[in-house]
Amino acid sequence: MIATTPAPPYYAVIFSSLRTEVYDGYADMAEQMVALATRQPGFLGVESAREGLGITVSYWESLEAIRHWKAHTDHLLAQKMGREKWYAAYKTRICKVERDYGMEV
Amino acid sequence: MIATTPAPPYYAVIFSSLRTEVYDGYADMAEQMVALATRQPGFLGVESAREGLGITVSYWESLEAIRHWKAHTDHLLAQKMGREKWYAAYKTRICKVERDYGMEV
Repeated sequence: MIATTPAPPYYAVIFSSLRTEVYDGYADMAEQMVALATRQPGFLGVESAREGLGITVSYWESLEAIRHWKAHTDHLLAQKMGREKWYAAYKTRICKVERDYGMEV
Repeated sequence: MIATTPAPPYYAVIFSSLRTEVYDGYADMAEQMVALATRQPGFLGVESAREGLGITVSYWESLEAIRHWKAHTDHLLAQKMGREKWYAAYKTRICKVERDYGMEV
């Protein structure tokens, strides 16, 4: 569940969100968007957790790949519904991963 | 709970982890480390969620501030205990936040 990513540099999109109390369609859409993201060019991996605050980090080969995903038609619709129904607040941060290290399973 | 951060550029440390089944001391230490981090020079904010996978993102003014925090004596001890007892696996990613946008509460 920790994403396996190549040696840096690569890019990360940190999406932090607080939900509304509207559940209608949210879980299905979230699942669809993850499935769709994994099929996009330049997608490297995704990590997600929610505990009140939700944090989803997706990893990408390039800024171009991130722009492409942000502009995907189905994703644009999901973003619009997110703003209108599902999210009380969110912040998206586009980052360049400069260094990484860790302990494997 | 979404961190309030200044205009980019600034830095993010994405810490993704899987826990062991050892609970002894973990919650207290995690709380202490967040409290200590917030008092470090260059600290900007922190966001955290766990749902199986844990994701903690801390935000910093500079790479120097991140190095300083990584080398803090109490934090070094916590890192050692984390590797030995609490974490089955983890990955730390040091990132430069280049752009951000969102919807406020």
